Amino acid sequence: MKKAKISNRYGYFDEATGEYVITRPDTPTPWMNYLGEGKYGGIISNTAGGYSFDRDPKNRRVTRYRYNAIPVDQPGRYVYLRDQESSEYWSPTWQPIPGRKLETYECRHGAGYTRITSQYRGIWAELLYFVPHDLSPSPSPTKEVEVPCELWVLRLRNVSDRPRRLRSFSYVEFSNWNAEADLNNLDWGQHILHSHIREGIIYTGTVFRPTTTFFASSLPPRGFDTNREIFIGSYRDLSNPIVVETGKPSNSQAARGNNVGMLCHEFRLKPGDERELIYILGVTEMPEHVTPLVARYRQSKNVKAAFAALKADWDAFISKFQVETPDAEMNAMLNVWNQIQCRATLFWSRFVSAYETGLGRGMGTRDTAQDTLATVQNAPERVRQNLSTLWRLQFQDGHTWHQLFPLTGEGGVGLAAEYPEYPQWFCDDHLWLLMAVCAYLRETGDFSYLDERLTYTDGGDDPLWGHMQRAVDFTLTHRGPHGLPRLGFSDWDDTMNLDHGSGKAESVMAAQQFCRAMLDLAELCDHIGKGEDSRRFRVLKNEMAAIINQFAWDGEWYTRAFDNEGKPVGVQAEEHHKIGLNTQTWAVIGECAPEERGKQAMHRAHA
Amino acid sequence: MKKAKISNRYGYFDEATGEYVITRPDTPTPWMNYLGEGKYGGIISNTAGGYSFDRDPKNRRVTRYRYNAIPVDQPGRYVYLRDQESSEYWSPTWQPIPGRKLETYECRHGAGYTRITSQYRGIWAELLYFVPHDLSPSPSPTKEVEVPCELWVLRLRNVSDRPRRLRSFSYVEFSNWNAEADLNNLDWGQHILHSHIREGIIYTGTVFRPTTTFFASSLPPRGFDTNREIFIGSYRDLSNPIVVETGKPSNSQAARGNNVGMLCHEFRLKPGDERELIYILGVTEMPEHVTPLVARYRQSKNVKAAFAALKADWDAFISKFQVETPDAEMNAMLNVWNQIQCRATLFWSRFVSAYETGLGRGMGTRDTAQDTLATVQNAPERVRQNLSTLWRLQFQDGHTWHQLFPLTGEGGVGLAAEYPEYPQWFCDDHLWLLMAVCAYLRETGDFSYLDERLTYTDGGDDPLWGHMQRAVDFTLTHRGPHGLPRLGFSDWDDTMNLDHGSGKAESVMAAQQFCRAMLDLAELCDHIGKGEDSRRFRVLKNEMAAIINQFAWDGEWYTRAFDNEGKPVGVQAEEHHKIGLNTQTWAVIGECAPEERGKQAMHRAHA
Repeated sequence: MKKAKISNRYGYFDEATGEYVITRPDTPTPWMNYLGEGKYGGIISNTAGGYSFDRDPKNRRVTRYRYNAIPVDQPGRYVYLRDQESSEYWSPTWQPIPGRKLETYECRHGAGYTRITSQYRGIWAELLYFVPHDLSPSPSPTKEVEVPCELWVLRLRNVSDRPRRLRSFSYVEFSNWNAEADLNNLDWGQHILHSHIREGIIYTGTVFRPTTTFFASSLPPRGFDTNREIFIGSYRDLSNPIVVETGKPSNSQAARGNNVGMLCHEFRLKPGDERELIYILGVTEMPEHVTPLVARYRQSKNVKAAFAALKADWDAFISKFQVETPDAEMNAMLNVWNQIQCRATLFWSRFVSAYETGLGRGMGTRDTAQDTLATVQNAPERVRQNLSTLWRLQFQDGHTWHQLFPLTGEGGVGLAAEYPEYPQWFCDDHLWLLMAVCAYLRETGDFSYLDERLTYTDGGDDPLWGHMQRAVDFTLTHRGPHGLPRLGFSDWDDTMNLDHGSGKAESVMAAQQFCRAMLDLAELCDHIGKGEDSRRFRVLKNEMAAIINQFAWDGEWYTRAFDNEGKPVGVQAEEHHKIGLNTQTWAVIGECAPEERGKQAMHRAHA
Repeated sequence: MKKAKISNRYGYFDEATGEYVITRPDTPTPWMNYLGEGKYGGIISNTAGGYSFDRDPKNRRVTRYRYNAIPVDQPGRYVYLRDQESSEYWSPTWQPIPGRKLETYECRHGAGYTRITSQYRGIWAELLYFVPHDLSPSPSPTKEVEVPCELWVLRLRNVSDRPRRLRSFSYVEFSNWNAEADLNNLDWGQHILHSHIREGIIYTGTVFRPTTTFFASSLPPRGFDTNREIFIGSYRDLSNPIVVETGKPSNSQAARGNNVGMLCHEFRLKPGDERELIYILGVTEMPEHVTPLVARYRQSKNVKAAFAALKADWDAFISKFQVETPDAEMNAMLNVWNQIQCRATLFWSRFVSAYETGLGRGMGTRDTAQDTLATVQNAPERVRQNLSTLWRLQFQDGHTWHQLFPLTGEGGVGLAAEYPEYPQWFCDDHLWLLMAVCAYLRETGDFSYLDERLTYTDGGDDPLWGHMQRAVDFTLTHRGPHGLPRLGFSDWDDTMNLDHGSGKAESVMAAQQFCRAMLDLAELCDHIGKGEDSRRFRVLKNEMAAIINQFAWDGEWYTRAFDNEGKPVGVQAEEHHKIGLNTQTWAVIGECAPEERGKQAMHRAHA
């Protein structure tokens, strides 16, 4: 295989390790990586900005992040270092002191971890961030329980030629778990969170529920702070906190206000000396389990084992799908980065990212169904689990909720309040589910899945196969004047909100998707011996294709949709919205014959 | 009258001007003032932090503010100054460069305006901020229209002994009006706002609606920027924007992303020279009216006249109520500051403040009713208008919505989603409305108000007097096991959420409030010759007082409430919630006889 030459002025892909290496901190925008896999996790930038949450970024936010603010990409998972002789301080991750020029800097975004290394004034430092997978076997005699957490491993080395005395100051800002209220309801939020320290562990909680954020380290701290304003000081910011500037922790135990995790340590390093300091950050409803968990990860060998387990898990995931094409960059993308991204979306859809704040819209039904398509070969069990969650969002009439929240699995279209007069369903959601099930069965042959009983969101249940019939029926019974699927709130294009109450708006895209889904179902039925059903699905496909070709083809272009008055959108006379055969998504997915144009070709494309 | 000695290490009250003078910028928290009066306006701190909106801070936000963020109290209405010889730059309002020590600093928070003055390296500078009241007579031949706006007046003086060349750079960050989406929906918000400049005026808008934010100045700008990231530069912040550091505006016209208002001017000042620069910031649905408005306020004389009109308006407001007590501090508070605060709450309730973000809860029905009590002598017309808005929130059964949004006047309890099993009404809201109407009538004698027809939120209408009967009836028909008012979601104490569905929770506070309201109504009826009604209200008061005294008095203390199981809260044995006679609000408001204790005294307190 040829070497991939994926690089630019900010970094390169390291084929030997599968890591993306960022060689300077001042990337045009923060370059994000994902930590964790569907339970505890979050995002981390190449300069340690980002935040953590437990399963749900809206209702179980653990740490804060200020999206789109100035300064950019703050706060995060920071450690300040201070030279006790010179009083100079810096951050080995560059941020939050971007004014300080580090002598060396490198960030390695790997699968499930990020490692940032730098050097300043003869001190080499490395911070490795990851979420451990392995919570068993237990090192303690107590019953094993899952306590969601992340680990930060700081390594320091004196590469100068004289003894050095350093202090370190961690910084992480705690959310009160409801990220939205934490941001907007200051009247409430600023009075409920408080922190205390016991046996070197910071506990942050409220009197209202047992939920407790904890933050600890592998070495006894020399001091600490949990009150943000005391740590930072009046009219200062994260680039010059007063406690770091003076080097003196104030041991503040926040009774309210903004709570942070600052543990201070001191290191005396002879030339060549190296030290390791492990930070443990997590959240739990069972505070009594914090002590054994912290005890476990205070031991370097357990952290090393956890990191090895993480690597092994990712290797297993990625090894299930490897391509070799003549294009080395394509190989790198498909074999590594695409799979890392797809695993993140499998768990969190597009709910958290560099610009999705994790506050608003939950996970999309359509998106989450699509996300299974790219991961069905790597994680078929999880795909089946996600599909079942999505099918449980289906109503008895066949349509589904458009969105769901990952913590509860509850659905919601989220649009009724703002647009009560619009249809409250999307015409493509349930069709994606049909296609996703077919893709899952093609990959796994797990046909018994069709018999699994799943509930409807408005009561009752059915085997999956019954749910699928109702999805087909919903499109068939919700058609507009031409016999095309009604558009609903929109189709795949979220902004195509053409139905303002008339019921005349129709989606050609959904009609084409319906054809594709009917072919998928027909093939499935052929394979499992349901010949009668197969014939029915092919007839349905043919009927819909005929309608498309009769009403949506103007001789040169396919109409994109019909609007609230039943008028075509995207015809010869218009500049936008026109669908040519060769650029048409479903034609490409289907058996496209690009050389043939016109009705016949379109018909065959879905045949 | 004795001089008030209101002062501390951060400032003092200047009795001569009625201003609060802040003498150092680093106050422990930002000290906020209000600009505007119910239409366009906002908050401004003693270092120019804060934001503006047009009527509604949630749906018509004009500029951004980052609550509870680090750095604190940013952004705001800033002007940077740069010495073109030394390249040194500073902000005459201290923020957003708190690291720069100014040689002098003073902020004067007045009624409806804020003036910040400082000196640095021989340059004296003053910034005066206010919202003009006077939009007529029109200086232009076009039809007069109201274009909401604010003015910043910068004055510069060279107090050094050499000629100076300065550049100024304004900075204000534009919201996309929906403040919540602007903060949380970056996927959308980062793609819709764009800016262009024409005739020295920055226009910021979207393609979706005519709403346009505009920003202009009285002198032709030498350059400008509207793209935040270009102005600030990579990984910089408001303390060191690259454009200010280099002194070179880049003339960026933002096509999307974060839009800001930066206009750059150059000044050549001989020793003793003074210059004035006026900034005009506003929002409108009629962009064609921006040019005449800007033309008007580009003229210093019109700005001076507007400021004089503002002062006259406030003098008229405040002069309607003046007290003279032996306590000078009390006089200053009642005659100036309390009235400024009360006028702000009259317009915006507690929707915007140093910690109320203007995002979440709208204005409270209870709060807004209370806010009329303190302003009925100053602004009776506006009080009547507010009361009518509140009464339109009433349902036919007599209770009211608990909250409303000022832009639309629409109500909403806002709690049904989170607490569906709790009662969706508050037992005190409608009682406050009764008391507020009586206070209004006592002050104005405007008894015809009782005949004004007002709609109900769920259909139909009635004269105000009919609404008031229904408010009385609601309490009478929503009583618990003892005959006391059911607690509903809560009473005046928002967190007293004792009714979890049993209907047994009762509020002694609301019972006492009911007694007070019945007395108010009886007095009103006596005055307007409704003797029969007067007798009925006195009987209702006596009956409720008897119930209180029979069931809520344990011989030593009054019970605060009864909980979901009907058990008393706040009795002898408990540490909290106990109500003593002398500290009891309603008793103080009523004819309290503090020397008498026990049932008889309580009875008389409400007699």
